[in-house]
Parts: sequence; C-alpha cells; structure tokens
Amino acid sequence: MDTILLAHGSGGKMMHTLVKDVFVKEFDSSHLRKYEDSAVLEIIDKKIVFTTDSYVVDPIFFPGGDIGKLAVSGTINDISVMGAVPHFLSCGLILEEGFSAEELQKVIKSMKKSADESSCEIVTGDTKVVDKGKGDKIFINTSAIGTMIPDVSLSKKFIEPGDMILINGFIGDHGIAVLSKRKGMEFETSIKSDVQPLNKLIGDLLSNGLSVRFMRDPTRGGVATTLNEICDGMEFGIELIEEKIPVREGVKGFCEILGFDPLYVANEGKVIIVIKREDSDKALEIIKKFPEGRDADFIGEVTRENAGRVILRTIIGSHRIVDMLSGEQLPRIC
Amino acid sequence: MDTILLAHGSGGKMMHTLVKDVFVKEFDSSHLRKYEDSAVLEIIDKKIVFTTDSYVVDPIFFPGGDIGKLAVSGTINDISVMGAVPHFLSCGLILEEGFSAEELQKVIKSMKKSADESSCEIVTGDTKVVDKGKGDKIFINTSAIGTMIPDVSLSKKFIEPGDMILINGFIGDHGIAVLSKRKGMEFETSIKSDVQPLNKLIGDLLSNGLSVRFMRDPTRGGVATTLNEICDGMEFGIELIEEKIPVREGVKGFCEILGFDPLYVANEGKVIIVIKREDSDKALEIIKKFPEGRDADFIGEVTRENAGRVILRTIIGSHRIVDMLSGEQLPRIC
Repeated sequence: MDTILLAHGSGGKMMHTLVKDVFVKEFDSSHLRKYEDSAVLEIIDKKIVFTTDSYVVDPIFFPGGDIGKLAVSGTINDISVMGAVPHFLSCGLILEEGFSAEELQKVIKSMKKSADESSCEIVTGDTKVVDKGKGDKIFINTSAIGTMIPDVSLSKKFIEPGDMILINGFIGDHGIAVLSKRKGMEFETSIKSDVQPLNKLIGDLLSNGLSVRFMRDPTRGGVATTLNEICDGMEFGIELIEEKIPVREGVKGFCEILGFDPLYVANEGKVIIVIKREDSDKALEIIKKFPEGRDADFIGEVTRENAGRVILRTIIGSHRIVDMLSGEQLPRIC
Repeated sequence: MDTILLAHGSGGKMMHTLVKDVFVKEFDSSHLRKYEDSAVLEIIDKKIVFTTDSYVVDPIFFPGGDIGKLAVSGTINDISVMGAVPHFLSCGLILEEGFSAEELQKVIKSMKKSADESSCEIVTGDTKVVDKGKGDKIFINTSAIGTMIPDVSLSKKFIEPGDMILINGFIGDHGIAVLSKRKGMEFETSIKSDVQPLNKLIGDLLSNGLSVRFMRDPTRGGVATTLNEICDGMEFGIELIEEKIPVREGVKGFCEILGFDPLYVANEGKVIIVIKREDSDKALEIIKKFPEGRDADFIGEVTRENAGRVILRTIIGSHRIVDMLSGEQLPRIC
C-alpha cells in the first residue's frame, strides 16, 4: 500500500487490512483488537466528561508537531480543563484518496505516542475515504471520555474580583509555527508549535486543594477570545498587563510583518487558569515544576470594573479594549 | 448568514453566532447551553460503551434521509448492536467554505429529530471550516456513549452451529437510494434509504431474556461483508438461503443494471441477529411488532461445515462462496 484508495474506505478486504496492519497494530489496545464497532469500558466514577474535536490543520506536519499529536493533545486538553482526567479516546479518520500511506503511518504513530505520554488509550475508531479533491490529505476527529477529579468543581461563576490570571508559557507559538510551513507563505523561523497534552500539569495542580476557579485552553481565537468567553455576560472584567504576557521575539516579529496580534493567535499547549489571589503563588510554583509550565506567569487579574470586558493595560500605561476575534485571522490552524 | 465562510471556523464572533443560533438552538440540550468544551454526564452504570463514526455520504440529501439522520442513526446503531442503550452523542462538523446555511439548518434539524426519536441527547460538539475545494459540503462525526443492558452479553464466541440468522427487513435500500441521486448517475426509483435508529427494536428484543448470541449492522460492505466478519477465524460457517433474503424488486433491478450484488450493498437500518434456534421464532415475533422490523425474516443458519466461510444456497440448489467485499463497490455511501 503506497497511497490511500477509495476502496480503503469501503468496508471490504482492503479496509480490513488497513485497519489491522496500521491502526490496530499501532494503537495497540485490547479494545481495538476485538474489532468491534464500539468499545466497552469500565468507568468506576459516576461523573464522566465527554468531548469531541475535529482537526483539519494545514499543513499536517509543522515545526513541533503534526495533526496526530494535535488531535490527541487538543482533545485531552479539552477534558483536562474541565477538571477531569482523560482516559479513553476515539479516532475518526477522513482520508483523501491518494494520501500517502507513509504519512498516514507517521500520523498514527504520533497519535499513539501522545496518547501513551498522557496515559490515555485509543479504544475505538472509524475510517472513511473521500475522492481526490473532496478532502485534504487527512482530517481527524478525536472524541474523549474522562472522569471528574473528586472534589474539584470549576466554573466561571466561582470567579471573583481580585482573582489572578495565570498562563503556563509563551503565546502564539502554534499559530506561527503552522503558518511558517503553509504553502505559498513559507518563511524561516525557529518557532515550534507548543502542541502538548496538559493533563499531567493540570491534574497535579488540581490535586493540591488550591482554589482554582476556572480553566480554559486558548486555542482558536487565541488568549483574547478565550478571556472574552470567560468574561462574557459576567459581572466582572479582566485586566491584562501587556508587559507580563509572554510572547517570544520571533512570534512578535512575524505578527508585526503579517499584521496579526499575538493575543489572537492559536495555542495548543497553553491553559489559562483563574485562581484565588491567596493561592496563586503556590499554583505558579507547582506549574513551574513541569516542563510545559516552565515559562508560566501571571498575565492579569479579575476586576470589578469593566464587567464583561477584557482590558489591556499597555506598556505606556494606556488602556484598550481587547475584543473577541471578529471574522477570520488564521484558517485551519487546528 | 447565507453560506459558510472560513471565519465561521475561526473561534471568533462569527463562529460563536453560528454555534449559538444554529447548533445550540436546534439541539436544545442543557449540556450545550453551558458552552463548555466538554459535557459532564451522569452515568449510573459502570460499564459504558463508546463508539465513533464519520459520515461523508454523497449526496447529503437522498430519498429517505440525509447525512444528519444518517450520522445519528448510524452511531446509535453501533452502540445498540453491542447490547447497550445509547444515551449521549457528540457532533463534530467539518464544513466546506461556501456551504449553504439553509442546508446546514436542515441537516442539524434532522440530527435533532433522529436523536429525539431515539431518546438520545447531543451534548457536545465542534465545528471546523475548510477552504472551498478541500472538503465536500459537510462531513459529520458522531461519537456516542451508551450503557450495557444488564445481564446481556453478546459475542461471536457464543455462536453455535444450529443458531439462526435473522434480519429485520429488505437489504440494499440505502445504497441504491443514495446512488440514485448521485451526480452523473441519477436515475428514477421509488427506493428509499432504510436509514433509521434501531435502538428501540434491539432494546426490546434484548430485554426478553432470549438467547441472542451476537448482532451487527450490515452497513458498508453489506450483509456479505458483515457475515464474513462474523465467521472470520471461527469454527463455524454460515449458510445463507438465497430465496429467503429480502430484496426489493427495484433494488434487484438496479443491481442487475449496475452490476452490483445486493449482498454487498450498504444498509443503514438493518441488523443481523444470530440467535439460538429455540428462541428464534419468539425473537421474530417481537421484531415484527416494530415498524422497522415488519419485513424481518430468517435468512440462514450457522453450520458446523465450512468453518470461517459464508455459503449461499441458491434458488437452483447450488452453493457458492460469498466472500468479503474486495476493493471498491460504492464509495461514500455513508
């Protein structure tokens, strides 16, 4: 098998061979080896968390990762920011006829590696093939099931003025890394995507009994959009301190050239944490112990003023409203 | 909004409006109204069933259904044939730039209707938009969570020679209905897709204490492929009786013209049930009470001979091997 043919999606012999020799072999799960349409899972807890995400990133390989690592990490992070431990993943593939079998193998191996590193298991899957020109190499849907961490309850409604806003590192890396390899736009940069699973960092933070109010991963739409989602309709505002927001020089430079604002550029290994002020130093200390939290810092705080709005206090001391992304900045970034 | 733009997938204001005004409004779930990335669900049972399926059917509207009804019914059926009750669904959309907003609305309404009819809830979702020419209108991934019906255990390993093979109605309707509307291939037919959720029929059958051994929905690859999957590597064979296999005259006719074998044509509202001979009449009686089982009948039996193989006893009394679909018959049928 060199390339994917329509017959690989038709339910017959060729699909069975593909599933057996590539997916079941690589993902190496006792659930998959049953060749059932569904996985039967033992869940001890009663409260489960369920999420889904499709990944259509272009290009599928980029500095720091690929669509496979992204599909596993992104969905794991969606479960984690709910205050839950991710356990099981599904893998739904839409392949374009003619897609390279070697690239498919690479993506599948990458999914398995990320799942292993996060102690998650890919337990069920599905493959469809669409005609050439009706897809784009590979689209991946991952859905996931997790269980709520006992005694953890995160919600926007717990957020209070005075709470601190924390992020675990540099912003905008993912967006710029993907863009640097996009056809017709290639540029040389040392920026790598931050794509990574955050379940270990988040799990550790939440098991320390600190008053974490809320968490969200600032992916599409970036930090600005996520903070706006947090404020939206609430009786508090958020003040960001421009000089505290960690942005690499490379990201800053490319954003200036391309006319982007790093606050709106996608991240895939970042989490925004809203935490009670009294517990915030302890939280920062815990997070900084993890490689994925080494560059963590406070970037702002929750205010009584400007309810429902995100305000940026600039380096020169002025204030400006940071609105939600309107329209299109970077398509197919995840 | 008349058509889908790339900005509808960018995580900003336009995506929020689309999600709020179309998806959350139509699906009408308290879980979705929380606008979280994941749904927190209460599951009383410990044993849960998890499945995923992507749908890329072309065209997206066909006689008897559309991609929305298909995406909900197909995934519900995957859960049901495991001996489980489906509860929660996810909805992951990949939209092509320029896709009609009206058609999107129709598909979403159709998903909601099918979910309601099956007492299932769509609780989490995701939307991506790809550039024009990199997708095909709409691809849908649905994943689902169900819980095992107590005291029900279905497995190929319980199948014994003498067991009966039952199907709940006519085969091949879905494949022929979809094909009849495919661009460049249109033909007039009264055949409608059999797409329908089977959870009520299956749930009722399984709660009657009958010795059901195994079930599978014969979708891609048709009845022939599914029966081959059941036999594969086992110490029994399956004998099909040609004259007992329910095929509509219209399906027969189009299959002859197009050079297809109805045994390999996809179904989306059918289930193959392997049941202990002593319980089979009672099972048929139960199934026939449901509209989706009105035309149910036995189509063959499990044999000690021909281990691992499916044999068709033809009307003229000869025998031929019914192999698994090799290569491509009907691409993008689901």
